[in-house]
Amino acid sequence: MSGLDADDRALLERRRKVLGGAYRLFYDQPLHPQRGEGVWLYDRHDRAYLDAYNNVACLGHCHPHVVAAISRQAARLNTHTRYLDETILDCAERLLATLPPPLAQVIFTCTGSEANDLAYRIACQYTGAQGLIVTRMAYHGVTQALAQASPSLGAQVPLGTHVRTVELPDACDRDALTPAQRFAAQVQRAVNELAAAGIRPAALLLDSVFASDGIVTDPAGFIAPAVEVIHRAGGLFIADEVQAGLARLGEPFWGFVRHRVSPDIVTLGKPFGNGHPVAAVVARRECMEAFGQASRYFNTFGGNPVSCAAALAVLEVIEREGIPKRVEEVGEYLRRGLGQLAALHPEIGQVRGAGLFIAVAFASNAERSAAAIARAVVEGMRERGVLLSLTGAGGDVLKIRPPLVFERQHADILVERLDQTLAALRAGPPPMT
Amino acid sequence: MSGLDADDRALLERRRKVLGGAYRLFYDQPLHPQRGEGVWLYDRHDRAYLDAYNNVACLGHCHPHVVAAISRQAARLNTHTRYLDETILDCAERLLATLPPPLAQVIFTCTGSEANDLAYRIACQYTGAQGLIVTRMAYHGVTQALAQASPSLGAQVPLGTHVRTVELPDACDRDALTPAQRFAAQVQRAVNELAAAGIRPAALLLDSVFASDGIVTDPAGFIAPAVEVIHRAGGLFIADEVQAGLARLGEPFWGFVRHRVSPDIVTLGKPFGNGHPVAAVVARRECMEAFGQASRYFNTFGGNPVSCAAALAVLEVIEREGIPKRVEEVGEYLRRGLGQLAALHPEIGQVRGAGLFIAVAFASNAERSAAAIARAVVEGMRERGVLLSLTGAGGDVLKIRPPLVFERQHADILVERLDQTLAALRAGPPPMT
Ligand SMILES: Cc1ncc(COP(=O)(O)O)c(C=O)c1O
Ligand SMILES: Cc1ncc(COP(=O)(O)O)c(C=O)c1O
Repeated sequence: MSGLDADDRALLERRRKVLGGAYRLFYDQPLHPQRGEGVWLYDRHDRAYLDAYNNVACLGHCHPHVVAAISRQAARLNTHTRYLDETILDCAERLLATLPPPLAQVIFTCTGSEANDLAYRIACQYTGAQGLIVTRMAYHGVTQALAQASPSLGAQVPLGTHVRTVELPDACDRDALTPAQRFAAQVQRAVNELAAAGIRPAALLLDSVFASDGIVTDPAGFIAPAVEVIHRAGGLFIADEVQAGLARLGEPFWGFVRHRVSPDIVTLGKPFGNGHPVAAVVARRECMEAFGQASRYFNTFGGNPVSCAAALAVLEVIEREGIPKRVEEVGEYLRRGLGQLAALHPEIGQVRGAGLFIAVAFASNAERSAAAIARAVVEGMRERGVLLSLTGAGGDVLKIRPPLVFERQHADILVERLDQTLAALRAGPPPMT
Repeated sequence: MSGLDADDRALLERRRKVLGGAYRLFYDQPLHPQRGEGVWLYDRHDRAYLDAYNNVACLGHCHPHVVAAISRQAARLNTHTRYLDETILDCAERLLATLPPPLAQVIFTCTGSEANDLAYRIACQYTGAQGLIVTRMAYHGVTQALAQASPSLGAQVPLGTHVRTVELPDACDRDALTPAQRFAAQVQRAVNELAAAGIRPAALLLDSVFASDGIVTDPAGFIAPAVEVIHRAGGLFIADEVQAGLARLGEPFWGFVRHRVSPDIVTLGKPFGNGHPVAAVVARRECMEAFGQASRYFNTFGGNPVSCAAALAVLEVIEREGIPKRVEEVGEYLRRGLGQLAALHPEIGQVRGAGLFIAVAFASNAERSAAAIARAVVEGMRERGVLLSLTGAGGDVLKIRPPLVFERQHADILVERLDQTLAALRAGPPPMT
């Protein structure tokens, strides 16, 4: 981090002193943004960075309509769900209008973690069971119940004894089964393993784009037979849409819609307030009723008028600006550009994804492993003013997940800089090991 | 709810349809506030309600300094903890300055639940143990791990097998032990019970005012020997300051300070952002280090620049306006007024509390149980324009917990209306059963 100036070194020192050691920073040379606007972040020297990673600021950083909604409501009234309020109902109804009708009732939370944690509680209550099935590199949140169902946190955060993991179908497998059959077989195996331990499954919990498993979006529909398996076993299907939801994939407003499946519970968060802490659980009425009969639920800040005003503003802008269609167009354009790069750079193994959730999987070359290439690309792109990060079990997949207002001109910049970065990597000195 | 007008009945109907059944409303005739200012909420007819219950809006509803901080920061930059940012450090340092030095490092969350859940995870990691000791009517949050350690949620939300509960010392007990000794004996018993089940204790988790146990603040210091017991047993002491913290009790800025004990971990939330969703865990460095070595922690919204700007603004106003001293003065004034009422109304059994966290425990009379009186008082006060609620195992304790900017004139209104309410209750028709 020698490239940091004295001010930023002082910040780093303050961080080390007063923030818990579980915090991590991005980049060898951490970024210190000062302001954000649209798809851009600006540092102290007013250098612009193209944000191709932040899915929270889905409408772009500091979107004026959302900022105005927050400021207006914060100045007028901010209470809680134990009083009557219109904003929470406007927001809930508008959200439900984007979902298939069996998903009928909402509970608001503040974070994606709280939403998944609550979804799990609801599933346990409804099924009377405890077992939970997730993918091998899943991440679902920070609470105790979710950390022990988030294998991507690493071996030092052990999985719960009621948790089983499944492998995602790899497009390269060459057996007689389709990816859908292979995935269903994995879930059936997990159900059987739970049964052998005397545990019934409460839920299959899937991130609809498998973001931390390396972004696996195809073939569309491949999760459908697995959903049938969990239903036959008496468990619920929870679609974690914290990453995939809210038009990230384009016209199929939700990731599960692209797979043509019917979740019993849907969770969402990150982009819901364009940065304001708001998230939600949507479930079938029977599930919510079973939970409501057993327990009250009061989340002090969840569903407060300001949070709901922020989320409502986001839903409005997504509709008004025709975001889903734009996402689909720009996403396709960007994938095409990346595909063309793949022909020039053997380091690019595969370009995949849907809408504006795109993965570039790297392939090892004579000098570097795929993961080393991936790390070098992320740092090289940061130096060239484009913000990205990695995913996948091997950390060898570039995760491209820009604000939904990304345009062709921004896609062009990204592709051009990636071209430069890969060329420089090949031209540069071999890595020191 | 016959007194509701058509508009509010329509809202109720919409709520029933689209919100999960676990939501609860306050009052027989739910309130529908339109705007808030200082200690007042206003309904559609611009009728003013004195808010004597909302501890979240600690500086008063829609405090202009906090609203401005949120609006300004939301318009400039809202990212996350993986970039360098000054606001989070300013906020963390200012928070730490209010705490004794062993409490050295902060992790930000969005809710009190997330803070307690994380505190429990940290305690488990640090001690290598799982057991958790809480009070008999404790409430610590909505996550799965906390719901099973929150007996106040009721019998249908079963306690975890690793959870044990302790009784608070009742001032009326007449054995040879002091309340402090009695409480320590309870905790020792819980430790022993855990040991008998082969479980070591990770933590004793206490709300420093025991809000849901009926508000038990005295004698100051009574929890100290219990803290020694948990430490001797190898567990940590977690002070849940979500209710008690941030000058609620006056000059002892934190509830545990009043008890002259040293927590290993402190959690806070509710008032921290004056309504904005922000909360935190503060812990001894060794605890944070043990956790950070085992796990990263990323809370998407936790510690974002807007949340930290809100919290920083709150800390600034508390200091600038000398809130702790004011709280102590007004709290004492209010308790004195309530004490004088007790001489007039035999229904008032006891007035207790500290700072602006005050309990009025009711006593049964010939016609009504204490709980029935308490319920009638809450409804009667709402009709007279004062907002309050109940606590305690029997639901017979009036919980008075106004914004910290409550003044003598507001205390006068509260006392006067309570006088009227109790008089009307006695004069009115006997209850129908
Ligand atoms: C798929 C998925 N689910 C849940 C979460 C948790 O969301 P939050 O950080 O808001 O608690 C995340 C966060 O990265 C996520 O990626
Ligand atoms: C003592 C205590 N701890 C924790 C919480 C949970 O806070 P939150 O609702 O912000 O999750 C509460 C909320 O009422 C509380 O009273």
